[in-house]
Amino acid sequence: MHGCRRTFFIVILFMCFLFALFYIDGDFWTKTSPRIMSFSRFSSCHSEQIPDFPKPNIGPFHNDNPTPCTCQNTQPANQYVPKDELEDLHKRRAEEFRQHQIRSGKENDVLILVPANTPLQYPMRGFRVTPMNKTLIPGLALQTQKRAVYKVSLRVQKGVLSVLNVQEGEKVDGQNEKHLNISSSSLQQLNDLLSRLTYTSSSYHIKTEDLAYFTFENHEVIFPIEIRRLSVPVLFDPGKDVNSQVTVLVKAFLRYKELNVLINSIRWNYPKIKIIVADDSLNPEKVVGDNIEHYIMPPAQGWFAGRNLAVSQVTTKYFLWVDDDFVFLNETHIESFVKIMEAVPELDVVGGQVGKNQFSFKLQYEEGSSEEGGCITRVSRTHAPLPGFDSCFFADGVVNYFLARTEAVRRVGFDPVLKRVAHTEFFIDGLGDLLVVTCKGLKIGHQKHSTTNKYGSFRHPPKSDSQKKMTHHFFKNHLKCIKY
Amino acid sequence: MHGCRRTFFIVILFMCFLFALFYIDGDFWTKTSPRIMSFSRFSSCHSEQIPDFPKPNIGPFHNDNPTPCTCQNTQPANQYVPKDELEDLHKRRAEEFRQHQIRSGKENDVLILVPANTPLQYPMRGFRVTPMNKTLIPGLALQTQKRAVYKVSLRVQKGVLSVLNVQEGEKVDGQNEKHLNISSSSLQQLNDLLSRLTYTSSSYHIKTEDLAYFTFENHEVIFPIEIRRLSVPVLFDPGKDVNSQVTVLVKAFLRYKELNVLINSIRWNYPKIKIIVADDSLNPEKVVGDNIEHYIMPPAQGWFAGRNLAVSQVTTKYFLWVDDDFVFLNETHIESFVKIMEAVPELDVVGGQVGKNQFSFKLQYEEGSSEEGGCITRVSRTHAPLPGFDSCFFADGVVNYFLARTEAVRRVGFDPVLKRVAHTEFFIDGLGDLLVVTCKGLKIGHQKHSTTNKYGSFRHPPKSDSQKKMTHHFFKNHLKCIKY
Repeated sequence: MHGCRRTFFIVILFMCFLFALFYIDGDFWTKTSPRIMSFSRFSSCHSEQIPDFPKPNIGPFHNDNPTPCTCQNTQPANQYVPKDELEDLHKRRAEEFRQHQIRSGKENDVLILVPANTPLQYPMRGFRVTPMNKTLIPGLALQTQKRAVYKVSLRVQKGVLSVLNVQEGEKVDGQNEKHLNISSSSLQQLNDLLSRLTYTSSSYHIKTEDLAYFTFENHEVIFPIEIRRLSVPVLFDPGKDVNSQVTVLVKAFLRYKELNVLINSIRWNYPKIKIIVADDSLNPEKVVGDNIEHYIMPPAQGWFAGRNLAVSQVTTKYFLWVDDDFVFLNETHIESFVKIMEAVPELDVVGGQVGKNQFSFKLQYEEGSSEEGGCITRVSRTHAPLPGFDSCFFADGVVNYFLARTEAVRRVGFDPVLKRVAHTEFFIDGLGDLLVVTCKGLKIGHQKHSTTNKYGSFRHPPKSDSQKKMTHHFFKNHLKCIKY
Repeated sequence: MHGCRRTFFIVILFMCFLFALFYIDGDFWTKTSPRIMSFSRFSSCHSEQIPDFPKPNIGPFHNDNPTPCTCQNTQPANQYVPKDELEDLHKRRAEEFRQHQIRSGKENDVLILVPANTPLQYPMRGFRVTPMNKTLIPGLALQTQKRAVYKVSLRVQKGVLSVLNVQEGEKVDGQNEKHLNISSSSLQQLNDLLSRLTYTSSSYHIKTEDLAYFTFENHEVIFPIEIRRLSVPVLFDPGKDVNSQVTVLVKAFLRYKELNVLINSIRWNYPKIKIIVADDSLNPEKVVGDNIEHYIMPPAQGWFAGRNLAVSQVTTKYFLWVDDDFVFLNETHIESFVKIMEAVPELDVVGGQVGKNQFSFKLQYEEGSSEEGGCITRVSRTHAPLPGFDSCFFADGVVNYFLARTEAVRRVGFDPVLKRVAHTEFFIDGLGDLLVVTCKGLKIGHQKHSTTNKYGSFRHPPKSDSQKKMTHHFFKNHLKCIKY
């Protein structure tokens, strides 16, 4: 091997010379022939990073506090809060928001980069474990030049690492600890050890995440480990006809005449469909009939309380929401809604039109800073057409006549605090959770109004109410300003 | 440059010779002096992959259908399904499960690997966009050897790519298309172009994902793009005392004597806390008192329907569940539950003990195959202690006396189909969604039983009921076998 070593040093000298050329004359390589380029692709040069490139910061980068949002021609949401309560309210809101951030896993919500030119192979995403169960980490490998000794290490925070059935002579330090080192004089053995590396979360949690730091020499990479408990599916048996698929929901208050007109109109085409009536009238009257469930609430308990009660009693996959003064027409076909929902399982709410009214809107929401809160406004626009359905458009909210997926709406709910005027509020709570479309031609009628004064006095609340409401949203939705 | 090229070829020859040596004598490098090793670390050898290492398959790997689970000493869940209905039921269940998989984004749930030794830098996770909004892709870069021309390309499926304000002379093909190519004779310019690369989802969706394929020469990597709509926070104002933090919920049926004993016992220490009573008695009696809300349901509507109704009416951050024949003792302190919840915001349910009974359990669940469904059994064990609270242990289900986070329980809900015997079923539906602990010493009393025959006949349903129930779970929870 002696002569060989001499020749080797000679080559090193030549290489250094080339090197110099490379830096002196940046275009040197480009002037060299393609043959050389293609040769270089198969050279056995190893994968160390080139000094030219500074080591990147690969994270984890936490999303910093978003910038404050501005209330374009809206009033700040706190303007109705009694001055003497504002400070306390602010403190409580800040604490609740802090808890909300923890619950929604904000601290795990980070940006991580993959650095270039590292000899490490590892799982980028999709490595999931169940809490406190030993699980093999897929895809770990080292691919590098020959070394006297190969040494890699892994670090985690919320669990422990271990290599399965380590044999005599395999070098593994830190079995069942947070920091594990593996070394070997054979790259193949090292990769074999990596293929037997497991992770076990050490604290119980049903939905969280850990980060693994994987290191070789001056290379370090990070990859996420998802820790969560499996959920059991919850399915609704749609049965064989519309009666086993849909329940009709009504909130009743005082207007029994209109309610009976509605019920009779439903029975014309749907003699057997279940109707749930949530009733908070001051002096409840009996509402009888087959497949009618009548729930009596404390007097004037409110509009959304009634909606939420009705939804809580549904046992079908879908429900149809109607107001007590609507009326089914010959062209009112519940099946048309169901067809759209079944065709696009991601949909949660399909809105129709009441007479000529096909009210629908878009919500423009900015998170804002965690101190001030967000900004939300409502604009009457839609997002985009629903592919395959010319007459349907994605929106954030629709009119009071819609078919909804029971399970999805239950997750959002109708806030029972909202006693009277309330509608958009449901869609605000559902933003990001409910996929909503509005469709032309799915029609129901509106009865002529014979509103009693008594009803009117409840339907149109005093100013004090809307002030309470603003205070409620200031806190509940963590808003800086609101307008709709 | 002529002489220089000649010397260069000479060197190439030497390098090939070395090469040969390397393959003939694998230990050659190890025998060379440390000086050479350290030199090699700073050599400008580029990052092409070494032929030794086969190109790995980096995915995306879809989780294949899990293996069927086995019913250890349990009966299959379909045994109670009437034979003539089984086939239809199976078909419908398969379709509902298919929709469920789509809704839960199973097709986006993939494993992706980071290959070693690629000159590409890119975001591994945390790159999130809102639907149809142009967003800069962070962290894209190429770090490689000198080339005559540098060429990278990106491909996406659910959106389009574009480089911001492209200047005269910058080579970008496929602006606003799914497939974009960038090339430059300067690495710096190429990386500058990459730093201006944006993604815009082209179809509207509130919760989905795209995959970007990033390529340079024979290197390809994949990274995920999360597409989702921002949600508005929903917070509860805890107010200043337990009355504004907690509502007590009771389901009443026939046993008004016990109910009144309970209510009076609550009023001893909690004169002002709100009590919600969901009542499906056959002949409802009035339940009156300050801060009592009495809801009258259709007769014998059922146990879970009542629970779900009560929860639907809560306006406080937490609720306390009690049965109508419980009784508050001097040592019954709602505040003790609240303290634990406030200390650990991730918690959703804190269970106490009824007399001496601190019933709690663990659920063992296997997904099973998508054809057959899962296997679930209940064992009376806990997971682990709750850090910081010696007397509390993580579990999957607890006794009928618990404090719960209103918003979290609403998301799971009590299935109103379950009319009588039902308790574990709620925790099955909540598996993976509700973080549950059971705590020693949080005590409430149980009244002596004076059960009427009538009550008993409802409380202990005929066998036909439990058969219906099994059929229900066979479908609803997509189960192959169930035992508890």
